Amino acid sequence: MATVGKSEWNFCSDNVAPVAPEILAAMAEANQGNVASYGEDPWTVSLTEALRRLFEKPDLIAFPVATGTAANALAVSTMVPPYGGVICTEDAHINTDECGAPEFFSGGAKLLAVPAPDSRLTPAQITARVEQARDHGVHVVQPHAVSITQSTEWGAVYGLEQLRAIGETAARHKLGLHMDGARFANALVHLGCTPAEMTWKAGITALSFGATKNGAMAAEAVVFFNPTQARGFAERRKRAAHLWSKQRFMSAQILAYLKDDLWLRNARHANAVAQIFARGLSAVPGVRLLQEVQANEVFAVLPEGVVAALEAEGFGFYRWQADTAPGEAAIRLVSSYVSKPEAAEALVSAAARFGNR
Amino acid sequence: MATVGKSEWNFCSDNVAPVAPEILAAMAEANQGNVASYGEDPWTVSLTEALRRLFEKPDLIAFPVATGTAANALAVSTMVPPYGGVICTEDAHINTDECGAPEFFSGGAKLLAVPAPDSRLTPAQITARVEQARDHGVHVVQPHAVSITQSTEWGAVYGLEQLRAIGETAARHKLGLHMDGARFANALVHLGCTPAEMTWKAGITALSFGATKNGAMAAEAVVFFNPTQARGFAERRKRAAHLWSKQRFMSAQILAYLKDDLWLRNARHANAVAQIFARGLSAVPGVRLLQEVQANEVFAVLPEGVVAALEAEGFGFYRWQADTAPGEAAIRLVSSYVSKPEAAEALVSAAARFGNR
Amino acid sequence: MATVGKSEWNFCSDNVAPVAPEILAAMAEANQGNVASYGEDPWTVSLTEALRRLFEKPDLIAFPVATGTAANALAVSTMVPPYGGVICTEDAHINTDECGAPEFFSGGAKLLAVPAPDSRLTPAQITARVEQARDHGVHVVQPHAVSITQSTEWGAVYGLEQLRAIGETAARHKLGLHMDGARFANALVHLGCTPAEMTWKAGITALSFGATKNGAMAAEAVVFFNPTQARGFAERRKRAAHLWSKQRFMSAQILAYLKDDLWLRNARHANAVAQIFARGLSAVPGVRLLQEVQANEVFAVLPEGVVAALEAEGFGFYRWQADTAPGEAAIRLVSSYVSKPEAAEALVSAAARFGNR
Amino acid sequence: MATVGKSEWNFCSDNVAPVAPEILAAMAEANQGNVASYGEDPWTVSLTEALRRLFEKPDLIAFPVATGTAANALAVSTMVPPYGGVICTEDAHINTDECGAPEFFSGGAKLLAVPAPDSRLTPAQITARVEQARDHGVHVVQPHAVSITQSTEWGAVYGLEQLRAIGETAARHKLGLHMDGARFANALVHLGCTPAEMTWKAGITALSFGATKNGAMAAEAVVFFNPTQARGFAERRKRAAHLWSKQRFMSAQILAYLKDDLWLRNARHANAVAQIFARGLSAVPGVRLLQEVQANEVFAVLPEGVVAALEAEGFGFYRWQADTAPGEAAIRLVSSYVSKPEAAEALVSAAARFGNR
Repeated sequence: MATVGKSEWNFCSDNVAPVAPEILAAMAEANQGNVASYGEDPWTVSLTEALRRLFEKPDLIAFPVATGTAANALAVSTMVPPYGGVICTEDAHINTDECGAPEFFSGGAKLLAVPAPDSRLTPAQITARVEQARDHGVHVVQPHAVSITQSTEWGAVYGLEQLRAIGETAARHKLGLHMDGARFANALVHLGCTPAEMTWKAGITALSFGATKNGAMAAEAVVFFNPTQARGFAERRKRAAHLWSKQRFMSAQILAYLKDDLWLRNARHANAVAQIFARGLSAVPGVRLLQEVQANEVFAVLPEGVVAALEAEGFGFYRWQADTAPGEAAIRLVSSYVSKPEAAEALVSAAARFGNR
Repeated sequence: MATVGKSEWNFCSDNVAPVAPEILAAMAEANQGNVASYGEDPWTVSLTEALRRLFEKPDLIAFPVATGTAANALAVSTMVPPYGGVICTEDAHINTDECGAPEFFSGGAKLLAVPAPDSRLTPAQITARVEQARDHGVHVVQPHAVSITQSTEWGAVYGLEQLRAIGETAARHKLGLHMDGARFANALVHLGCTPAEMTWKAGITALSFGATKNGAMAAEAVVFFNPTQARGFAERRKRAAHLWSKQRFMSAQILAYLKDDLWLRNARHANAVAQIFARGLSAVPGVRLLQEVQANEVFAVLPEGVVAALEAEGFGFYRWQADTAPGEAAIRLVSSYVSKPEAAEALVSAAARFGNR
Repeated sequence: MATVGKSEWNFCSDNVAPVAPEILAAMAEANQGNVASYGEDPWTVSLTEALRRLFEKPDLIAFPVATGTAANALAVSTMVPPYGGVICTEDAHINTDECGAPEFFSGGAKLLAVPAPDSRLTPAQITARVEQARDHGVHVVQPHAVSITQSTEWGAVYGLEQLRAIGETAARHKLGLHMDGARFANALVHLGCTPAEMTWKAGITALSFGATKNGAMAAEAVVFFNPTQARGFAERRKRAAHLWSKQRFMSAQILAYLKDDLWLRNARHANAVAQIFARGLSAVPGVRLLQEVQANEVFAVLPEGVVAALEAEGFGFYRWQADTAPGEAAIRLVSSYVSKPEAAEALVSAAARFGNR
Repeated sequence: MATVGKSEWNFCSDNVAPVAPEILAAMAEANQGNVASYGEDPWTVSLTEALRRLFEKPDLIAFPVATGTAANALAVSTMVPPYGGVICTEDAHINTDECGAPEFFSGGAKLLAVPAPDSRLTPAQITARVEQARDHGVHVVQPHAVSITQSTEWGAVYGLEQLRAIGETAARHKLGLHMDGARFANALVHLGCTPAEMTWKAGITALSFGATKNGAMAAEAVVFFNPTQARGFAERRKRAAHLWSKQRFMSAQILAYLKDDLWLRNARHANAVAQIFARGLSAVPGVRLLQEVQANEVFAVLPEGVVAALEAEGFGFYRWQADTAPGEAAIRLVSSYVSKPEAAEALVSAAARFGNR
């Protein structure tokens, strides 16, 4: 569980961060007079336009919701019948951290989870799962969609080639392809490509476009690149109680998030701080990284004594389940748009110091 | 459908209103540093304490959520098994305006709706429904709970006597008793009683305590007066994606809402504006009120020409389904904490003027 | 509740009857050797062919299931998304007697029930419900299908004109049209038309074709007249556990039911016995029929003393909820393919005798 | 997929078998006159008494249903809230062969599947899964029950020691313990213990007591050893459409199944035929068993050419997914109560003959 010490030393998650000032200001600015409720407001209209420009897709349809779990579960439920399945990795957030939300929203669809060391799925795994099921007709839950996370739950980033290969595989098997983009921006700035390239041009059909972890208060957007595939989403959002009456305050967050590339600046900052951890911890004797650091999450194995000393010192992070030798402990460090480089350096120095005792 | 004109003349609903400045300020104040996510923050802890004091019930349990539909559907799903039923009125918000959310959250429970002119349920109706079902064993959906709305969907307010009689009836039949308090404050200031008197002292077991319609941005609290009856709620909220990672911003809203009686002042204001409509429109020849006005909703029947003229003039309100004579139209006017008395008077004057043409 | 006396005097329901000897013999005949399970057997293949001939529809798709509730709930769940609604009458079996099965199978769809004296729905009621919902967008559950019962729960039979009018109305509003044919045969022999005329030629898109109440052990068939509308049904049946491994014994029942018009003979017999009740009871002073008797159900109002005496004598029937004067009681009598005319006459005579006391 | 040849050579599954003559005769005997429907008949009453004697548990509650999937899914849905999880093995029938029925019936509960070579779960696996989840609160689906299969999907039989250890573990973690006994009799005669020893005395709280695979037509019984844990089952069965109106014909099957130890004789026969396969195939060069044969299922690896030749010869069995070397193929052979020893010997001889070519 989390150890939480000084606020600046809190690396438990990027969602411990406050709201970016630009976004809070935009919400205050939206607080003018009476306006039509339930998404009939001008901010929500502008948001669709902004996302269409951003993704270079003039007919996409987008639905803002307040949480990443809502975005994922609503997207998946629109893509898969209740008797169908979704191929994902065992460590996928939808499989491990949403208390069964995809199963709930979809009316009982099954997550067909496959093991993947850094939570990156491969085309071969998808095909194997499909063929295994196709042989058994109605007895077995048939895959109807694939869900991948970008960047993944282990901080890895799918390259464009990998995404395209998955996209082709999904299309060949007539599967929808969902991207959980809770850390979309962190992956995007790592790849240096366009949002279109990382999504529909690679075959993604539905995207959970995250903003909360990267500076918003409570705002994500579900984006369908093919509007016919959004059928029923509006109804599902309403009956899941995820349509706000004062929806303008959700849309205003995402508009401000996109404005003047705030989202990209925030993500670059978070990724850069993660690199301080990556470089710094690698250099500490007895410490090793579990994964190459590509986005804003760092997974490291340290001597148990060092981890305990860091906790006692007041640094905040989660211990993580991983294969470690006796006397070792794995931890996860997550940097955010407000993480101070000095705080990351302080943790690295402390780890080195404790390791030398 | 709604006609929306000038912002100040918009009486479509109390949810067209902006956020109360005190509440927005509290959200900005909560925007300090990294804090534990998912409700482990100090604001959320304080909120429970505040509600315990407010309701004079030191062991109640409360869960903030963003929307009234979430509050209602989550509460109901905790009170009723999927094979059970909830007695409510035909016009209950849960029955008509939530796109089937209670059915969804509960896994298919049935709303057992009975007709009620002003959407106030009677003990006799509850007993009749229970007895009718008890006779038919497993073939019929058995009632497990009752849900009432205070103030009701037709702007009526249950008196304390009525509430207590319902409470006793529900208890006698071993039914949970839920109150949809989307407009709780408006009812409370009308009755001039304490929150405890209007809820658990009358037999209410679970409450959707609304704040959004009365000044918050997106915040309600589900309150269980008997903590053992909250079993499973936390899990249900999470899997319904209604637990925010940055939950502090939801809790901060309700804390500010309660502080210095902001919520009561707001409700008194809204109710007072509704009385301007009630008194003013009653005096216009050819106009009649459909219901006594007790809270902040006004239902009136006007000559069709007057309604059309008001719409053309730019007043915002909904036409409402009701029994009217040919040449008449029913409308609903809802006042909120920001409604200007002058705007209400302007509408009344316009109605009188148009009626005289 | 039911009073059950001598077996022959049991008119509680047509499902108290045993299995027709011809059907039991066919099951025994199917009990030969090992055959492919889960519906890959020859009987199931033959059944589809038999139904295609019967309904004059060479591309229909049919799925046998064991119970009428399974047939109805699976059909409805295939026709309506979880966020949709089904227009039916308040007294429809799916609304009152299936413990919420349609809601369960559909994942929470809502039954939009309208009052109808003899449980016959009208085109105007359908249109009114649709228009009422269309105005309110995502807030209201939108109708996606209509379900009617033939013969109805009050023993009435829709005429072909009525069916066609409903069919046209449903098609105009793009609604699926389901017929609960638990007593399909009783209606068919009353009308004297073809199965095709009473179904797809009138606009029915899915049929629960009942056999259990008319002589089978546990067998109904869900028939989709347009095979594309059956999408997902096979999977839904399997996951609802309604695909038998030894499916041959279900299919064999329906094959025997259809062979040599057994089903029509059985239904004619049951209807004829109902006419004995109808004619006989009408002639008893102080007794009146609540409905014209068109199929095999009789609803009558008798003096309370007569009802009690009949019960004491050992006749079996249900008391029924209906508007009666003080001192009166309503009852339902159902005849089946094994009901003896002498037994019906005995009940009529007894009623007359008790009435004269 | 299955290759089906001559009826006697069909070893695809034990559910390809016909109905035992004793059972069919009992159904015919039950076909007398009108009797109360929906389980109010004498056969159903007798069945509960018979099961209470059989299991030496005078207060158990039992519910007959038509299919094993219904028994499992209904049992599980009664044991686990929709937001909970069920620990089982990856190859458990509920996880792989029921098209998501447990998820459907439970309203979205999650199967927490762990790998197990012969599909026998261990106490350590249960504890590990529980501890892993307990750490993560509402974010992770919490285990509420364990489900094991006896005999397992790989033909293994849990010993009494193993069962008791699992029972203690489940009780310690406050988990319900379900046994999928689709092949209960085959396991029981292998162990030579009493039904009580193999169930509640070892800690089993709910049992799917199978009969269909061992001679019945369509009949299983869900048994709750602690009646308070059956709460809601009757309602769930009805709304899942698994309560027959002519329920006597389901209960009569199980009564006949138990009478004069028919079920034990049938199971002994099936197990004995499986031993013919086990001994015979082990002796064929190039053939190996994948599992020790303890019940009536045999898993063997043969040269691909031999498998193809057996198929061509007309033997019926499934090819099975297993780790095999190139040129090899795995198959499953299932014997039933009607399997002829000569037919099993014929297959063994043919395999030897083909292997020698």
